Amino acid sequence: MADNTRERLLEAAFEQIYTHGYQGAALSEILRNAGVHKGSLYHFFAGKKELALAAVSWKLNDRFASRYRAIAQADGPFLSRLLAVLKDTSIRDFERGCPLANLVQEMSNLDNDFDAMLKGVYAEFKDAIAAILQRASEAGELPMQESKRLAVFVVAAVEGAILAAKAGGGEQDYLAVVEVLEGCLLGYGADINWA
Amino acid sequence: MADNTRERLLEAAFEQIYTHGYQGAALSEILRNAGVHKGSLYHFFAGKKELALAAVSWKLNDRFASRYRAIAQADGPFLSRLLAVLKDTSIRDFERGCPLANLVQEMSNLDNDFDAMLKGVYAEFKDAIAAILQRASEAGELPMQESKRLAVFVVAAVEGAILAAKAGGGEQDYLAVVEVLEGCLLGYGADINWA
Repeated sequence: MADNTRERLLEAAFEQIYTHGYQGAALSEILRNAGVHKGSLYHFFAGKKELALAAVSWKLNDRFASRYRAIAQADGPFLSRLLAVLKDTSIRDFERGCPLANLVQEMSNLDNDFDAMLKGVYAEFKDAIAAILQRASEAGELPMQESKRLAVFVVAAVEGAILAAKAGGGEQDYLAVVEVLEGCLLGYGADINWA
Repeated sequence: MADNTRERLLEAAFEQIYTHGYQGAALSEILRNAGVHKGSLYHFFAGKKELALAAVSWKLNDRFASRYRAIAQADGPFLSRLLAVLKDTSIRDFERGCPLANLVQEMSNLDNDFDAMLKGVYAEFKDAIAAILQRASEAGELPMQESKRLAVFVVAAVEGAILAAKAGGGEQDYLAVVEVLEGCLLGYGADINWA
């Protein structure tokens, strides 16, 4: 019961912050959506900020685990499974954009605790992608080495693709970026059909 | 004199918004930094929002013109000039990140006027890059066709690279993304040295 209350608070906090940003998030709305009294909140968290830090890191690390860590831990093919996840627009919200990028833009140069938490989550994203690329490389699916360096590129392209969608390009521009990325990863180079 | 006042307001507004976001920007600070009285502000703009919309579109379109439009309008080589601009970290501010991306994340789903202005600025960025890629392609510097589609990818990669830097990777991750992007553009594919 206590654990369930904590999880409802984390879920409601994540949703509220994702929609309104941290500074725009209303604690009263979070409590109402979670169906939790203010007294119970302070049983679990020192305040709005501690709740927000816990909610964002919990939710995003959980998401990376189910979306990406699972691929490296299962059997191959690794690269095509990664690309299938990236091409699945049903798991994306182009209106709200990327929750990680939104918070980095809003909070990283305003608050050291957010900055540290967000850098940790971003590093977890890179690590999860690097693990997939490493296994793909070992399995001969990927011509490039240097999976860590390539993971930095893949994460940047995905974040940029979500921004491109939010900035007016919609699903079409998101998918265009992922498809060009696919061509880069497969090393088709000049032979790929860019049309 | 009047024009100079207007430009000081635009400059001060852009800087304040870049550092604090639109919602966190203080009009009193903008006026103080511009050395302008509140009455003069209303001679040029209806209020904070109109000033902000004008400042951001003016500053960013001016920046795209000098950084990117100038390349397509000059003699080649086009691609290496573009890559030189992208690799010049002295014109980047990785602590504050990209002013365009910051505002898209903050304002696009909160205000229709910001959304429309930001989509216009983002489209201008894509167009400026597409014009360079088009000329590079015509000059035989680029193996790929479809310069518009490729421009969507280049802009996404650059925006993602700036986010990667802000999210903990610093200049090193920014440059790693630009260098892998260079490999993709040149179509080296599997032959590129990714190390």
